[in-house]
Amino acid sequence: MAQNIKVSIVGAGNVAWHLAPELDNAGFVVQEVYSRNAKNAEALVKRLYQAEVKHDLDFSSSDSNVFIVAVPDDYIEEVAMEIALPDEAILVHTSGSKPLSALGYSATEHIGVFYPLQTFSKAKSVVFRDIPICIETENKSTKSTLIKIAQSISSVVKSIDSKDRKALHVAAVFACNFTNHLFTISKEILNDKSLDFELLKPLIVETINKGLMIGPENAQTGPAKRGDMETLDHHMQYLQFNEGYMEIYKTITQHILDTYSNE
Amino acid sequence: MAQNIKVSIVGAGNVAWHLAPELDNAGFVVQEVYSRNAKNAEALVKRLYQAEVKHDLDFSSSDSNVFIVAVPDDYIEEVAMEIALPDEAILVHTSGSKPLSALGYSATEHIGVFYPLQTFSKAKSVVFRDIPICIETENKSTKSTLIKIAQSISSVVKSIDSKDRKALHVAAVFACNFTNHLFTISKEILNDKSLDFELLKPLIVETINKGLMIGPENAQTGPAKRGDMETLDHHMQYLQFNEGYMEIYKTITQHILDTYSNE
Repeated sequence: MAQNIKVSIVGAGNVAWHLAPELDNAGFVVQEVYSRNAKNAEALVKRLYQAEVKHDLDFSSSDSNVFIVAVPDDYIEEVAMEIALPDEAILVHTSGSKPLSALGYSATEHIGVFYPLQTFSKAKSVVFRDIPICIETENKSTKSTLIKIAQSISSVVKSIDSKDRKALHVAAVFACNFTNHLFTISKEILNDKSLDFELLKPLIVETINKGLMIGPENAQTGPAKRGDMETLDHHMQYLQFNEGYMEIYKTITQHILDTYSNE
Repeated sequence: MAQNIKVSIVGAGNVAWHLAPELDNAGFVVQEVYSRNAKNAEALVKRLYQAEVKHDLDFSSSDSNVFIVAVPDDYIEEVAMEIALPDEAILVHTSGSKPLSALGYSATEHIGVFYPLQTFSKAKSVVFRDIPICIETENKSTKSTLIKIAQSISSVVKSIDSKDRKALHVAAVFACNFTNHLFTISKEILNDKSLDFELLKPLIVETINKGLMIGPENAQTGPAKRGDMETLDHHMQYLQFNEGYMEIYKTITQHILDTYSNE
């Protein structure tokens, strides 16, 4: 079945960098790669069996039947408006935060979202098999094609509409983007005393493992959870050198106090 | 050398539960365990070679020369005031947030802090070798004894005074307690849409690995980092159902915007 599906990729950034070779290996041979920056497209093509660099968005005479738009969120609508596709082609984007309708400007009715729920960097390989792929489309045959592709590279394939995908994205911002920023603050607090962030690694790893294992709501510890107002006061005084840190400390602490106050 | 050091433990909670057997195995044989709750002491004694349950804090005729107070922070001073020790005994507490002076009320001048930088639960084993142990004391001979004990169970032993230990504790609150609470919020946002928190696991694990590998300040991603005001607005609107979530979203987002605005 894989042989009937041929793929072209618009974009050669972090997502395309990992997704395109994965599709190649699964038998959905990538035919063309387009990027605004041709050098990026050339670099990605080198990772693929037989793909060629495409220099414009006119795919009307392309052999492919699935077109994957893996560009920064803000360019998705622009690509959808400019792209020319063969008849019956499927067009998908890979964004967690853009609705399906961002592709509504395109020439095809076969639009979908093919969102791999992971953070990608070119320098770091990932195991696709574990990455959830969130599929959205309103067209039945498109859906079966996208699910077929997704299941060939991942063991976790979910149909998720734009509204649920927004919840997923907001949740990911809390669990990943915000978490990472708290690490940055933590590191700065330590560096300010010439202490090494490495010291906290075992604690961080254990905290996260425990949270994922028994559920974060059962794994909460710390002065706010204990209602230890004396320590909270000391910490607030300690943080007076940085108003931004104080503000974050106060806000999250208050929320933890509110969350666990009835225990 | 280990043979000369004998240990008694006050407390039978999460820290004592893991620390006492570790000391036993390293040859610092634990003689006695005291806990306000004798049943906890009995359970811990069962994990040890030859320890006995102690029913009061009068250790004046004890064989031990190192006494470890591993009780909740708020009881450390109380124990220090009540405990009776043999001559020249060393008394330490294991807290990250209490100063050395919390033991100043005790009968001995040989006071110290022996703080394993990890979160402990009775149900979950830990690898002590990787856990940083932070030592503080103002007495030279006490210091060499504490370092000897620490190095026998951990490969990361640091002398850290009370002021630096406070920085470490505040940093740990940001990196662990707050992070875990953000996971809880993330999970609730997903559950509200009947989505499974499991979906985020690969993303969380990858985010943390990346942050620890290349430094969190280099690993920051997301709409706030990109200055993507449209997505930030959408997320704020989405979160209107919960004022607490909105407040946290706004505060951390603003701080990320401020941090990366000059890039």
